[in-house]
Amino acid sequence: MDNLKSLDNLIENLYKLPGVGKKSAERMAFSLLEFPQEDLDEIANAISELKKKIHFCPICGMITDIDGCYICDDKNREEDTIMVVCFPKDVLSIERSGAFHGQYHVLNGEISLSKGMDVSSLNIDSLLDRVEKGNFKEIILATNPTVDGETTAAYLNKLLEKYNVNVTRLAYGLQIGGNLDYVDPLTLSKALEGRHKI
Amino acid sequence: MDNLKSLDNLIENLYKLPGVGKKSAERMAFSLLEFPQEDLDEIANAISELKKKIHFCPICGMITDIDGCYICDDKNREEDTIMVVCFPKDVLSIERSGAFHGQYHVLNGEISLSKGMDVSSLNIDSLLDRVEKGNFKEIILATNPTVDGETTAAYLNKLLEKYNVNVTRLAYGLQIGGNLDYVDPLTLSKALEGRHKI
Repeated sequence: MDNLKSLDNLIENLYKLPGVGKKSAERMAFSLLEFPQEDLDEIANAISELKKKIHFCPICGMITDIDGCYICDDKNREEDTIMVVCFPKDVLSIERSGAFHGQYHVLNGEISLSKGMDVSSLNIDSLLDRVEKGNFKEIILATNPTVDGETTAAYLNKLLEKYNVNVTRLAYGLQIGGNLDYVDPLTLSKALEGRHKI
Repeated sequence: MDNLKSLDNLIENLYKLPGVGKKSAERMAFSLLEFPQEDLDEIANAISELKKKIHFCPICGMITDIDGCYICDDKNREEDTIMVVCFPKDVLSIERSGAFHGQYHVLNGEISLSKGMDVSSLNIDSLLDRVEKGNFKEIILATNPTVDGETTAAYLNKLLEKYNVNVTRLAYGLQIGGNLDYVDPLTLSKALEGRHKI
């Protein structure tokens, strides 16, 4: 049945999506066969329209679909703290926590030793520019707690040394609701190191 | 960031796909942001075009995108055996095994006790019609080895009693490459029942 071209074509295309294997793509395609045409059109439209309005904010590098940026334009946010993250989705995660009300700066990438150092493609110049011209008291380097994230943080920390600003890093430790049995030894030792009085 | 409409819209739409949770939909959407526009258009097109050409073969009930049907039109296939399956994807699975070269009949559903008996919506009348007018020696009821599949097979077997044709069922037993440790007791007892001389 290599003949059902539209089905095969869809399976091939769904297979391009991250986290979708050959078998899932097939299951999805067969299930889409049972969707009404208007739903298919709606999904198709959402995919093809996705990038048409989205661009990067020239100030913070976050994705936006308006002239300005939802965060940079928000006058209610604190203006003396800036959190540096690697990817736009990190902003969503942190916003969801509701714990941060300052500015963001999105690097749109991270230094990857495995893929070769790629500093030039990162949104770093505009960060230094903002720090130099702005009046920030603290810069939180919220890159991932991975080798690449740590490397990126160390690189930024070096660059930021010459400015009169506190550079901080998010705390390492146990995950809320986690189980000590399943915590890796490095995290456990970091959690112990960072213990606090109750 | 509930403001990025095109992104939110895509996440909502991807979330409709089977097996895609909220988190996967979000990950997919962010990864699609990095796809070139032409790839997005291609995926979108594959989704919206999917059903436009696909329809059911009036003879066997399999999906097809041509006037006839790839299987019914194939004169090299055996004409005296017919395999009854519940869904079009079952035909693909069996074709992939290369073990069957006869005709198919796709019910496009199965009798579901949990969802209420739904015999009328199944492609059964045309099966009886084919059996009556055709010259079949064997009908293989290849419905799933589940409660619904067994119920469907039992129902069909009853209907087919009056025709002079052998009605068979696929064998139960161990999966090739499987491990005895992980086989459920019912399958194991069926495998024992159906043991054969080596």
